[in-house]
Amino acid sequence: MLYQVATAALSPGDISYPIRSVLKKFKSSRTVLADVLDIDVAAKQVLLGDEALPYDYLILAAGSQTSYFGHDTWARVAPGLKSLEDALEMRRRILLAFEKAEREPDAARRQALLTFVVVGGGPTGVELAGAIAEISTQVMREDFRSIDPSDAQVILVEGSKRILEAFPEDLAANASKSLHDLGCWVWTGKQVSDIAEDHVMVGDRRVNAYTVLWAAGVQASPLGKKLGVETDRGGRVVVNQDLTVPGHPEIFVIGDLAKFVENGKPLPGVAPVAMQQGGHAAANVSRAIAGRALQPFHYFDKGNLATIGRARAVAHIGRLKLTGLVAWLAWLFVHVLYLIGFRNRAIVILNWAWAYVRRQRGARLIYGDVNNLIPPDSKLEDESAAELANRN
Amino acid sequence: MLYQVATAALSPGDISYPIRSVLKKFKSSRTVLADVLDIDVAAKQVLLGDEALPYDYLILAAGSQTSYFGHDTWARVAPGLKSLEDALEMRRRILLAFEKAEREPDAARRQALLTFVVVGGGPTGVELAGAIAEISTQVMREDFRSIDPSDAQVILVEGSKRILEAFPEDLAANASKSLHDLGCWVWTGKQVSDIAEDHVMVGDRRVNAYTVLWAAGVQASPLGKKLGVETDRGGRVVVNQDLTVPGHPEIFVIGDLAKFVENGKPLPGVAPVAMQQGGHAAANVSRAIAGRALQPFHYFDKGNLATIGRARAVAHIGRLKLTGLVAWLAWLFVHVLYLIGFRNRAIVILNWAWAYVRRQRGARLIYGDVNNLIPPDSKLEDESAAELANRN
Repeated sequence: MLYQVATAALSPGDISYPIRSVLKKFKSSRTVLADVLDIDVAAKQVLLGDEALPYDYLILAAGSQTSYFGHDTWARVAPGLKSLEDALEMRRRILLAFEKAEREPDAARRQALLTFVVVGGGPTGVELAGAIAEISTQVMREDFRSIDPSDAQVILVEGSKRILEAFPEDLAANASKSLHDLGCWVWTGKQVSDIAEDHVMVGDRRVNAYTVLWAAGVQASPLGKKLGVETDRGGRVVVNQDLTVPGHPEIFVIGDLAKFVENGKPLPGVAPVAMQQGGHAAANVSRAIAGRALQPFHYFDKGNLATIGRARAVAHIGRLKLTGLVAWLAWLFVHVLYLIGFRNRAIVILNWAWAYVRRQRGARLIYGDVNNLIPPDSKLEDESAAELANRN
Repeated sequence: MLYQVATAALSPGDISYPIRSVLKKFKSSRTVLADVLDIDVAAKQVLLGDEALPYDYLILAAGSQTSYFGHDTWARVAPGLKSLEDALEMRRRILLAFEKAEREPDAARRQALLTFVVVGGGPTGVELAGAIAEISTQVMREDFRSIDPSDAQVILVEGSKRILEAFPEDLAANASKSLHDLGCWVWTGKQVSDIAEDHVMVGDRRVNAYTVLWAAGVQASPLGKKLGVETDRGGRVVVNQDLTVPGHPEIFVIGDLAKFVENGKPLPGVAPVAMQQGGHAAANVSRAIAGRALQPFHYFDKGNLATIGRARAVAHIGRLKLTGLVAWLAWLFVHVLYLIGFRNRAIVILNWAWAYVRRQRGARLIYGDVNNLIPPDSKLEDESAAELANRN
């Protein structure tokens, strides 16, 4: 739900909850806010710099971060969406682009300020593109005087043949149509070859745009490499069927950081996989302590959902294919159900209900630099900042 | 209500609303996000650097900012509370101090991490001290393993003889008692002579504390000086009875930036004064345009309110003096009533109701640096950042 924060529909506090509070009732748990610098698998210690935490069993779930496929300089001009800080930075750029367009006398620069390029046609890219299109055509329609926000162009660029590759083709086509209805351009089979402050090269076509959002790729946390076991090209740790790593029956790796192969295919880096693996790893630790055999993990695929704007989605649940409002309601139900804590659920529902009725965005705050759309210095998020969102 | 954000009870989006949206229905209004660099009163222009905005009438309401009475180096170690960014920075430090204490092996350093000094015994200082005491004794009670958050010390330091000088003496005494009941120390008649990263000097007594919060003083925005008219020692523009400035019947100054003397005393820098002056200045502009005489402003004092913790307050309304829960309900009612927009009100009430029932804090997110309690470089807020909160 980070894209909801990025597009000013929700506040960070609405979609997150302190881990410390979640775990407070488990008296044998201890929550530590610190950077993990290394893991000493021989001594069975997690090294925090000023402290070494000994372990009998280790469950590593450090997740993934944005990857620019070697083009690290793109990080400054095209932020990703892997943390709450990322989401606030995207929100700042999107809202500030409209503010700057409102004051821009030059027509070409104004159009470039109102052009939003989303790179990557997976669920995150589709959700971002749909939400930005909706903001500009509906939410901010009457807020400006010099510009018409519905002049904004949203372009979704996807390298492969179609968007939403994890979905059946007809559902992806339906999503494409929904994006078109919202006024988005969907460019498939097109590679981004360069990103600069004021333009993007899509193939050899130059698109003048100041706001480029990156939803094209992730790589595993570098912590995976500290275990000294096999990792794949994306840095994911290749795990056994019981979620342990080869040679270390006391170390489990789960979620985006794990490469788990089932039926000849690696599981995707999505929340349901991570949540199910978390429960399974915990159960296996209990089994190990009790001297029983570890059980293999099996993923129960509840289906795929992607939302497009205020009341449209596509959903693929078993043999069921849903589109439009029905799919959106399914998406709403599932996501709200899994947010931790009653309070968060109530506020999220209230916010959404309100946004739905009023077509308004309640969380339209800009933090940080209000002068520069793209910060003058490279402010790449360091790992600690990126991981903060997971911790909190 | 910034202290509610600073103490993790509310999210920034709960207490603020975009000015642009508030004004959208007034089609003759235009909202511009920009830094005002200067005011050319002769040419009747507001200078934004890249643009000059001409005016027939100007209403200047640039407010005030934290003042350290010449000790500007204290800004880094003792943040003030004048903007949403300030509030998030205070929140970060308060929550991070508990996190660092949880991992601190040295008992003396641990106690210093759990010592919170609030400088200034006005409503803001009283509200901050009460809220921090409440967090530590109630909200976070069971969240930690190594520390007991209720070991936290909260010390409120006030230079003059008593706290809440704007209130009658018996109400201030009641507030003092309420703070004591929550476990706060209230030190009156004590001056802060130095603030460093790990301690505060109160008179010649050294208090070891890593978290010092500044609620002791404000000064007017430097924009007031650009008008070239008389300002007082605090930088406030001395205004006429009709809120115009001497020699410029087309310029109005209101709120914290104005020094308005009524019955021989300047009005205090509080929200009700600013709101009433805003309405009055607008009416006077209408009168001027219609060729009618400007009317003098009279402040209608609806009373003073300060809250202490979850369900206590003191209120002075006319001849009525309220304390305890009744005063707190009055405070709740008035503050929620004046928040702009239905949505914000509903969410604020929901948040509070929830916090009240569960003694929980829903907005316990830390943004930014999670390693350093006090940022290594001086990150003084520049004016644009401080004014952002007002704009948005």
